[in-house]
Amino acid sequence: MQNKISKATIVRLPQYYNCIEEMLTQGIDHISSSALAKKMDITASLVRQDFNVLGLFGQQGYGYPTQKIYLKIKDLMGINCHHHIIIVGTGNLGQALVINNHFEKYGFHIVGLFDVNPRLIGLEISGIKIQSIDNLEEFIKKNRITMAVLTVPENCAKKIGKQMVDAGIKAIWNFSHTDLNLPEKITVENICLSDSLMKLSFRFHLQNVS
Amino acid sequence: MQNKISKATIVRLPQYYNCIEEMLTQGIDHISSSALAKKMDITASLVRQDFNVLGLFGQQGYGYPTQKIYLKIKDLMGINCHHHIIIVGTGNLGQALVINNHFEKYGFHIVGLFDVNPRLIGLEISGIKIQSIDNLEEFIKKNRITMAVLTVPENCAKKIGKQMVDAGIKAIWNFSHTDLNLPEKITVENICLSDSLMKLSFRFHLQNVS
Repeated sequence: MQNKISKATIVRLPQYYNCIEEMLTQGIDHISSSALAKKMDITASLVRQDFNVLGLFGQQGYGYPTQKIYLKIKDLMGINCHHHIIIVGTGNLGQALVINNHFEKYGFHIVGLFDVNPRLIGLEISGIKIQSIDNLEEFIKKNRITMAVLTVPENCAKKIGKQMVDAGIKAIWNFSHTDLNLPEKITVENICLSDSLMKLSFRFHLQNVS
Repeated sequence: MQNKISKATIVRLPQYYNCIEEMLTQGIDHISSSALAKKMDITASLVRQDFNVLGLFGQQGYGYPTQKIYLKIKDLMGINCHHHIIIVGTGNLGQALVINNHFEKYGFHIVGLFDVNPRLIGLEISGIKIQSIDNLEEFIKKNRITMAVLTVPENCAKKIGKQMVDAGIKAIWNFSHTDLNLPEKITVENICLSDSLMKLSFRFHLQNVS
């Protein structure tokens, strides 16, 4: 069933999660597809369609039980699991990710930081020591790390990406502004800040110039 | 015409732009909807539908003229314009955005940096001096700034967002992990890193656990 989940549904999944989490904190125990749709600015039929694909079912006249749906989505997203992750590249962006740590909430524990810069190696951020990138492969193998955050410059991202995958990494959160060209079985989530900036520009233009 | 452009089309617009830019650098002067669709991992009919809504037309048997389409998308996205922008919050993330400057390419010129931290005020990043946030409103008004990047912590984001809008800001690139609750006429593009991380986790889980 799960392999048929479309990209568009996957994009909405974190939004469902956040919405339902907020409802739980407000003590709401059931939610209709139309109320949820309104909150998310989509149609009720799209909510029902997504939930159907995800195997989440409601009750006629009552809607969806928030607690059950929340736990099921959490389970689907693997948030119930504990992942050990490493961050490769501890420049400003890498450091910002460690410091504004949003990882823990979703079950991600940062266990290693790596950089090439001798001025950074040995420093501690949030209690984790930055290691030389020379230790990267051994660390991944020894600790069976499967997920990594890549915050290195564009020009070395492909090489380091391949190195990590060869050592055992199976999922990469890629901030490096370049395609990593890795085998399809490797899960890569690209953060395209430029795309978002272009969207802002376009929407601004549409609103204020057209 | 432009007001009917759907959110989904807007999301794809930067991707069309990047694809066609790459083709131009390869000397490709015409492109069929099916070839473009293949590159973007969507259907040809979706490409034709998007281009139709955007007022971009091809020629039977020849496809779309890449140069013309490129310039039209650039124009639609306002990339031909020059925007002055400011960055509010110059912690690690704000600094990373200034240093890895991807703004200039899209016509955005950083003209001001602001922070509350006395240790940062007065420092220069990429030749731009960090000012006290006390100067923010006056700076926006005096220089008629309409776009801002918000990289402040969650707990003060709403307040600063409102302050900026009152002073004249019309578009905000929001990295603060919170809804700014601004009037609808203000264009806000939220960067939700947690959502992206959850997507990574879900896709990884689907690939390796299911």
